[in-house]
Amino acid sequence: MIIGGGFAGTHAAKALAKLPVDVTLVDRRNHFTFQPLLYQVGLAVLSPADIASPLRTMMRGSSNTEVLMDEAIAFDLAHRRVQFRSGAEMSYDYLMLATGATHSYFGNDAWEPLAPGLKTIEDAIEIRRRILLAFELAEREMLENGTHPPLNFVIIGGGPTGVELAGAITDITRRFMRHDFRHIDPASARVILIEGEKRVLSSYPEDLSISAERQLRALGVEVHTGLRVTGVEPGIVIAGDQRFPAAVTLWAAGVQASPLGKLLGVPTDKRGGVFVNNTLNPPGHPEIFVCGDLAHVEQNGRQIPGVAQPAMQMGDHVARMIEADLNHQPRKPFHYFDKGDMATIGRLAAVAKVEWPFKAHFSGFMAWISWLVVHIYFLIGFRNRLAVLSQWIWSYFTFTYGVRLIYGSQALPGWTDKDGVEIHPAEPTADEPPSKSAAAD
Amino acid sequence: MIIGGGFAGTHAAKALAKLPVDVTLVDRRNHFTFQPLLYQVGLAVLSPADIASPLRTMMRGSSNTEVLMDEAIAFDLAHRRVQFRSGAEMSYDYLMLATGATHSYFGNDAWEPLAPGLKTIEDAIEIRRRILLAFELAEREMLENGTHPPLNFVIIGGGPTGVELAGAITDITRRFMRHDFRHIDPASARVILIEGEKRVLSSYPEDLSISAERQLRALGVEVHTGLRVTGVEPGIVIAGDQRFPAAVTLWAAGVQASPLGKLLGVPTDKRGGVFVNNTLNPPGHPEIFVCGDLAHVEQNGRQIPGVAQPAMQMGDHVARMIEADLNHQPRKPFHYFDKGDMATIGRLAAVAKVEWPFKAHFSGFMAWISWLVVHIYFLIGFRNRLAVLSQWIWSYFTFTYGVRLIYGSQALPGWTDKDGVEIHPAEPTADEPPSKSAAAD
Repeated sequence: MIIGGGFAGTHAAKALAKLPVDVTLVDRRNHFTFQPLLYQVGLAVLSPADIASPLRTMMRGSSNTEVLMDEAIAFDLAHRRVQFRSGAEMSYDYLMLATGATHSYFGNDAWEPLAPGLKTIEDAIEIRRRILLAFELAEREMLENGTHPPLNFVIIGGGPTGVELAGAITDITRRFMRHDFRHIDPASARVILIEGEKRVLSSYPEDLSISAERQLRALGVEVHTGLRVTGVEPGIVIAGDQRFPAAVTLWAAGVQASPLGKLLGVPTDKRGGVFVNNTLNPPGHPEIFVCGDLAHVEQNGRQIPGVAQPAMQMGDHVARMIEADLNHQPRKPFHYFDKGDMATIGRLAAVAKVEWPFKAHFSGFMAWISWLVVHIYFLIGFRNRLAVLSQWIWSYFTFTYGVRLIYGSQALPGWTDKDGVEIHPAEPTADEPPSKSAAAD
Repeated sequence: MIIGGGFAGTHAAKALAKLPVDVTLVDRRNHFTFQPLLYQVGLAVLSPADIASPLRTMMRGSSNTEVLMDEAIAFDLAHRRVQFRSGAEMSYDYLMLATGATHSYFGNDAWEPLAPGLKTIEDAIEIRRRILLAFELAEREMLENGTHPPLNFVIIGGGPTGVELAGAITDITRRFMRHDFRHIDPASARVILIEGEKRVLSSYPEDLSISAERQLRALGVEVHTGLRVTGVEPGIVIAGDQRFPAAVTLWAAGVQASPLGKLLGVPTDKRGGVFVNNTLNPPGHPEIFVCGDLAHVEQNGRQIPGVAQPAMQMGDHVARMIEADLNHQPRKPFHYFDKGDMATIGRLAAVAKVEWPFKAHFSGFMAWISWLVVHIYFLIGFRNRLAVLSQWIWSYFTFTYGVRLIYGSQALPGWTDKDGVEIHPAEPTADEPPSKSAAAD
């Protein structure tokens, strides 16, 4: 039984399809999400379907695999049973847990609705709504009052996601939206990236951090490092003694492991990651594997990062260990083979740390091309690769992009006009008739 | 000022872009929706962005046009002013109102959440969620209990939308989903189409209605004509003395005009359509044009139907009349040039009534090909045409389709298991931690 249909879970399921075992793949969503490109959905460059694949379709050819949409809520390790939210209870011989991570607001849960993070398709659609809406509302304010509140996009957290978001928002406001508005100047939007550590991309080598910051500044991003956010209020981000007015605030600062790790009742680290040994088992449970972002695995004294590459490798390795068990052979320890890491910053801008097939640090165009090739290659499904590639080529040459749809609410939390009145606080439902009292003829 | 960015509004704006006038195009959404293909979003064949275009991008090249996202809530016809929900008030020289139509539940508003209709992108996403979820939940019930409640899809209303939905759902369950489930047989799903009139497509010539019904039955749709729905309850549709259990109920039975027509304070018909003369003005207001679905226009003693073709023609005609005014020439009366009408039923199945360039009735393959060509041709934007065409070709040959994403709630109203318990009534939020009490280790 595999719980979690992310990089680790789907790789394990695919590899187990070739073995004489029965596989059940459970996820509370019906689709795999290619998280590395999620920010492009948030920025309206790609459609959700371009980067998500139904798990059922992915497993169509694996006749020993069934896919189930459900959510584990309790484990009985002694009897090897899992209880699901639907009321179902199922037993397992092997359990693989790979439910990933979610945002951590470090105890400030009130910040979440004000500064959404980016982990799911729903998150991306909400971020898209807020970014697009900010421009629409600014245009309307400008037309009506001749002024609009600061069109600031504040991104909290300067890791890969924060850097990608900051770069891409700047790209879009500077290049793509130029010709679309009559009153506001989209290029006057400020993109502010706040990072608590001394440098952005603090998990990267220092030269790449410096290069990333330089590329961000060249694009027009305001980068603040060594500055800790102490408050997020409607329309305002407080960091140190500075108050940043914000039309849209995005959270890319902290992650915590899925709560399922704690539910197992085995030791976890402070972000909820499950301590596992070198065969990916929690202590005393060789029949349980914890993989991907949910696992705390150390190698050469460093924790393996929670990104796609190790997750895929862990998934594959679990299948190999189960094969070894079936053949009564010893399990081989997991060894993370690090091919490198990369973060994109904007059009033709990126940084890449290559570990294999040679060691190198790239910046700028070369890094950007590598990023593009790697991400297209690993995207699930031929159709999606084709769709994404053609969308990128189209956007690149025409400076237009197609997924700029706003649905849902028409308000941004706390964004107020010059009189301090929240802009468009009304929340029209889809077909609510206008209020009678306002009618005049 | 044009209020409403549908077929009529966007056509008028495009045509007015060539005249020495200032145009403001207002819509409460930021995008034009190509409604004729909305059902394909509901069926997860196309992505929302394939059939919707940002109004701002559509009007990018029209330097005399501004686009505003807002909602009219009151009119002061004497002073030629419009009040908007945002608080803005604007004056106009000419006003064009083309805000279309919405669902009518004939006074039974409680039916709406149980039987959503299909007018907006939001509607389509909700319908997609329900259809896909029904199969997922049935598979889970089957695995857990060895049985599942009837997988019935009940469509109320046998007009073009109802026929298209019924045909397409059947297509998908019979052909596309075959290989995706291990326990349920998707082809055992029943698709039930209920129409109050004597025949489906009652606005079409009788021979095409008969053909449509035959094609629907050949696909596997259960067609009930002359049967009026008297009740919609959670999980059940009541019609005559029959009770149809329903996993998903869809509404395609009635439309009413946008409430903005009534707000004008001019005479309207019983569905809220504004009576206009042959220059599309309500009585006594030559400066106001009402177009598209919101207008009640008669020609040769018959009301012009509320579909895309007349809406586009009305939009173009309004621009021509304003041009005539500017040149101090008399306005020409509007004449609807009917090229025909078509409804698709499924793969290779459709009916078409051609009026121009020759008169003919087509059924089956020929009608389907015409439908395809016409819909691709009228779709807004080259990118969308390419995306939709390649998606259709891909789906046609591979029997897969890519947009099968479920987000949001995991419940279907009133769909219960054999013990009468609602299936998965829990509503997990995206990252809600599982309840502590259920934890066991």
